[in-house]
Amino acid sequence: SAAQESKTSIGGYGELHYNNLQNQGSGADKDEIDFHRFVLFFNHEFNDRLRLFSELELEHSISGDGQNGEVELEQAYIQYDFNDKHRVNAGLFLVPVGLLNETHEPNTFYGVERNNVEKNIIPTTWWEGGVMFSGELAPGFSYDAAMTSGLNTSASNDYSVRSGRQKVSEADASDFAYTGRLKWTAIPGIEVATSLQYQEDITQGNDHDAGSAVLWEAHTAIQQGNFGFRALYATWHLEGDGPQSVGADKQMGWYLEPSYKLTDAIGIFTRYSLWDNQAGSSVDSEVRSWDLGVNWWLDPQVVVKFDYQDQDAENEDDEFDGFNVGVGYQF
Amino acid sequence: SAAQESKTSIGGYGELHYNNLQNQGSGADKDEIDFHRFVLFFNHEFNDRLRLFSELELEHSISGDGQNGEVELEQAYIQYDFNDKHRVNAGLFLVPVGLLNETHEPNTFYGVERNNVEKNIIPTTWWEGGVMFSGELAPGFSYDAAMTSGLNTSASNDYSVRSGRQKVSEADASDFAYTGRLKWTAIPGIEVATSLQYQEDITQGNDHDAGSAVLWEAHTAIQQGNFGFRALYATWHLEGDGPQSVGADKQMGWYLEPSYKLTDAIGIFTRYSLWDNQAGSSVDSEVRSWDLGVNWWLDPQVVVKFDYQDQDAENEDDEFDGFNVGVGYQF
Amino acid sequence: SAAQESKTSIGGYGELHYNNLQNQGSGADKDEIDFHRFVLFFNHEFNDRLRLFSELELEHSISGDGQNGEVELEQAYIQYDFNDKHRVNAGLFLVPVGLLNETHEPNTFYGVERNNVEKNIIPTTWWEGGVMFSGELAPGFSYDAAMTSGLNTSASNDYSVRSGRQKVSEADASDFAYTGRLKWTAIPGIEVATSLQYQEDITQGNDHDAGSAVLWEAHTAIQQGNFGFRALYATWHLEGDGPQSVGADKQMGWYLEPSYKLTDAIGIFTRYSLWDNQAGSSVDSEVRSWDLGVNWWLDPQVVVKFDYQDQDAENEDDEFDGFNVGVGYQF
Repeated sequence: SAAQESKTSIGGYGELHYNNLQNQGSGADKDEIDFHRFVLFFNHEFNDRLRLFSELELEHSISGDGQNGEVELEQAYIQYDFNDKHRVNAGLFLVPVGLLNETHEPNTFYGVERNNVEKNIIPTTWWEGGVMFSGELAPGFSYDAAMTSGLNTSASNDYSVRSGRQKVSEADASDFAYTGRLKWTAIPGIEVATSLQYQEDITQGNDHDAGSAVLWEAHTAIQQGNFGFRALYATWHLEGDGPQSVGADKQMGWYLEPSYKLTDAIGIFTRYSLWDNQAGSSVDSEVRSWDLGVNWWLDPQVVVKFDYQDQDAENEDDEFDGFNVGVGYQF
Repeated sequence: SAAQESKTSIGGYGELHYNNLQNQGSGADKDEIDFHRFVLFFNHEFNDRLRLFSELELEHSISGDGQNGEVELEQAYIQYDFNDKHRVNAGLFLVPVGLLNETHEPNTFYGVERNNVEKNIIPTTWWEGGVMFSGELAPGFSYDAAMTSGLNTSASNDYSVRSGRQKVSEADASDFAYTGRLKWTAIPGIEVATSLQYQEDITQGNDHDAGSAVLWEAHTAIQQGNFGFRALYATWHLEGDGPQSVGADKQMGWYLEPSYKLTDAIGIFTRYSLWDNQAGSSVDSEVRSWDLGVNWWLDPQVVVKFDYQDQDAENEDDEFDGFNVGVGYQF
Repeated sequence: SAAQESKTSIGGYGELHYNNLQNQGSGADKDEIDFHRFVLFFNHEFNDRLRLFSELELEHSISGDGQNGEVELEQAYIQYDFNDKHRVNAGLFLVPVGLLNETHEPNTFYGVERNNVEKNIIPTTWWEGGVMFSGELAPGFSYDAAMTSGLNTSASNDYSVRSGRQKVSEADASDFAYTGRLKWTAIPGIEVATSLQYQEDITQGNDHDAGSAVLWEAHTAIQQGNFGFRALYATWHLEGDGPQSVGADKQMGWYLEPSYKLTDAIGIFTRYSLWDNQAGSSVDSEVRSWDLGVNWWLDPQVVVKFDYQDQDAENEDDEFDGFNVGVGYQF
């Protein structure tokens, strides 16, 4: 019916990337064109207090047996408003940590690829199944408190947090995760937020040499006139002899990203970032990256991007230098 | 154009499940969170007599090489009205058998998971490619008659009917299936229906020890005031020495499901069910299940579910006891 | 918002095929029902000069680990109008070659399956990532000029062009392709067009016995009253000793397709086609096909098709004779 249709809305985003990167060690160069992400949103209002948000994604342009890509459900949750200040989400939703995890449309950030700190440390894009309470504590001061499925990493991946994402696909639910976030946005153009998460067992009880884990993250995002600035710090502590033996008991990263809008349509940025998934080891395993680039918005929702990256790592196989070009949109 | 848009509608449904089940034999427990099904409908009216229905599904939240889930087309057919009483469907459609096969949105039934009788015996969700004629024989008395692609099961699966679903994906079409259904709904709140199906060769000619097969199903669904009641019986007969040798010549199941709505928003139910995919053998292979639970509709289209299950089987590896929690929606 | 929704449109097409074909050699017959393609379009107008086109496809009805089918992104590009005569496309788009590659909805062509010349030689459906400039040189005379990702074929596939499609999925971008097309449509009902493409290296530098390649294609499509006629010729030249050693230095095909509309709703056609992916060898590797059939449009956007095919090849394993039935729609 007409009434029903007006309550259902669709949207989406997409990004095509061209990467021209030279590996500085013995690894392979990356000289690729990839439609990295094609995403659709399907939302519906059941009534004034109850609604659905969902996000369906095709990665790498093709999915099937023997293919590179995947079809993923990144969000699908019901949101219910208790009143105009407090609400609950139930279903599959993005974990409230960092800047990009919840807002990752290509026209909303600088740089062709998502930054490596949020990718490898948070690890973005990260969704879980569960329940989250959110609301406003005071004007411009909000909270989120979630109980969700947990990560399931293993020694075979050196306990990297990113490899532990189960994606709510028949996910082992032996051990849960608990996440809290406080966010302050009282002054227009300024966001300051911090998140804390406790994982009951980051191997879901499968590895007796590992156990609980804690993530702490803090960031700020500032836009004042033409000047912009983003900074983020995230660190994990993993309990147990297993993670400690490979230095994965500490996994951390941070970045600083000043930017300047030359015009409404053109902005330039630079980013210095550092990340290390085995920061607890005596080996120098960290990677550092200088990125420098430009966003050109053909429209507020359509962007062409270019950036140059110069990485530095003790293990040169982890080091990729070169440039990236991207085209992205959101609707 | 505006005219075209008004003739295209989208909808969908989804269900997130948490299963906490203990295997009573030597098998693995099931302690999982899974976004079991994310589904979208795309429908279009070509003209007053001609329309498209389609249903696209992502199972288990992620699909790709090495992943658990799948993307499936569950419906995509053209419907043409001969007149206001008779019509034909051509394409890929749901086989007209049972209660859940055609109506499986989570807000329309009790229990977190679809019942095992319809899953293992009918086998729901079951679609085929072909042609179906449908219509009204008298007020409240309807028929369906379909000629479709057939099942393709094999000895390696003990001739289980569920494993024979080809899903209209380059499906072997050596042998067809013919299905008829009569349904009586003359009294509001009461449905009584029966279906009969003949499979020319349930192995598509690949197994000379098997051949034709017949499914008979009957059910009723009653809602009178706060009282509800569903009952269903389904049985297969498979010809040939192959099915007979493992007792799969008879595959059958039934359930009884009384329910009561405490309020408009809350209903409780219990279900006793029994199913056996090798009912023709002298071995006790049947599984029996008591289910007891509650549906809480936040809205007619959004439901939270809880149920407890107590199964019983001679082979305790087939027996799972515990509880399930679900969140589902339809729009 | 209401304004945004009116600028987003959805559409799609689909086709179910029944193939009953006897292999004339020692190969397997093809007796199949398949929902070959289920496709959705998602388009959006950002502003009067800037828009998105996208096309998402599920092939063979199911996609996942161990399954036949695939989910593919076939189009996703931003189009910007420089003025009312010239525009640019950026993203993932269909290569401007042939009749079916860009217009392949089932109601727009005769025959259940897409013709083998465009499938094996062009090779349709063929998309790449890149940039394309298009516009009008004079009334009814248009041009397209594209710089895109290239093919990546190999000796293991006898350098067949079709096997070289990378589908913009982490595609090797060592070597690009350049395509130009001129199209003349000044007289209503008549289209004449020709395309030329240069591939810098059709193995992306992976095979030192191969290198650059050139495709030339020309076609006409005529509809005058009830009479229709389509003709197409396409030929590839591949440089290098590798392609030459298996005769793949020349890959070519052509077809002639007269048709006649008996009524607005019913049309008959015949097609003679010939294709050869190793036309440079002394071995007789070509396949010839006579096709004869009928399209019945239930509506301009819904079609039922039947055709009979009689193929002829020196290698009888390449020869399939029999009939095909199809149901298709577009909205």
